[in-house]
Amino acid sequence: MTDSYLNATTPDLESRARPEDHGDLRLWLRLLTCCNLLESDIRSRLRTEYETTLPRFDLMAQLLRAPEGMKMSELSRHMMVTNGNITGITDQLEKEGMVERNKVATDRRSSIIKLTAKGKRTFRKMAESHEQWIQGVMAGMSEKSKKNLFEALGELKLIVQTQLTLRS
Amino acid sequence: MTDSYLNATTPDLESRARPEDHGDLRLWLRLLTCCNLLESDIRSRLRTEYETTLPRFDLMAQLLRAPEGMKMSELSRHMMVTNGNITGITDQLEKEGMVERNKVATDRRSSIIKLTAKGKRTFRKMAESHEQWIQGVMAGMSEKSKKNLFEALGELKLIVQTQLTLRS
Repeated sequence: MTDSYLNATTPDLESRARPEDHGDLRLWLRLLTCCNLLESDIRSRLRTEYETTLPRFDLMAQLLRAPEGMKMSELSRHMMVTNGNITGITDQLEKEGMVERNKVATDRRSSIIKLTAKGKRTFRKMAESHEQWIQGVMAGMSEKSKKNLFEALGELKLIVQTQLTLRS
Repeated sequence: MTDSYLNATTPDLESRARPEDHGDLRLWLRLLTCCNLLESDIRSRLRTEYETTLPRFDLMAQLLRAPEGMKMSELSRHMMVTNGNITGITDQLEKEGMVERNKVATDRRSSIIKLTAKGKRTFRKMAESHEQWIQGVMAGMSEKSKKNLFEALGELKLIVQTQLTLRS
């Protein structure tokens, strides 16, 4: 697990904006700063409270959503981290009894990865903490402000998705 | 340059939220999705239009803000990427004539890194494109919506920063 546009050492990126910068750039830097602050907090809590990393958390989150298991190739498509380390993370989680690998009957070369019962229990506990951390960090914001932000982000998301689809 | 909570293969993370999830978690996933979409677009444009990477762009951005140059240690503190690759990136940029290293008179073990004139020209061109990409992607959003989003994010940023400061 390595570097990120977002990481714990990141200062307030918005301070990078110069007065002459266009409003859209300032908006993007502010968006990124918010993501940075929250993501680095999550990384640090996963590390100190669960001795785990975001990619491990992410991989387990994917598997929880696929009770029938996933092939390695599907995992890499769905994960938030690129596939560089997926094999390594899976090996490690298997050793710890969190996931199990089973051969696919129709394709002997690939395996299906599943969370074990222990893996499910462990992940659910972390996911609950994860949710509580987010709630704790956002506690000072009124419900009205959160609703406004949620809607404004919804609009941005739609516009960005549309733009990217038009271009592709 | 490697993995990220944010990356090009990331699908819409918000789809990961379950109906029973708390609103704060949904808000976080939506925020992260917006960052993902924009960041992966920037990475892909830097690659296709400038054959460069986000950490290289980031490093040059830091240096542009420090006309007197920066020590390696300062660079790693200020960059958006962790310091794993900073030495490698700096070596590469030096070979390409984008940066220069000068020994510090008072401390022979450390060097000051600066953008060369070529580095400045190159970075300014990329930064201009970067800004235009952001504007292009956000073009479908009204000024009023952008203003609302900017303010709502400002509120979130302040609350998160306050929370993190209180805890540290």
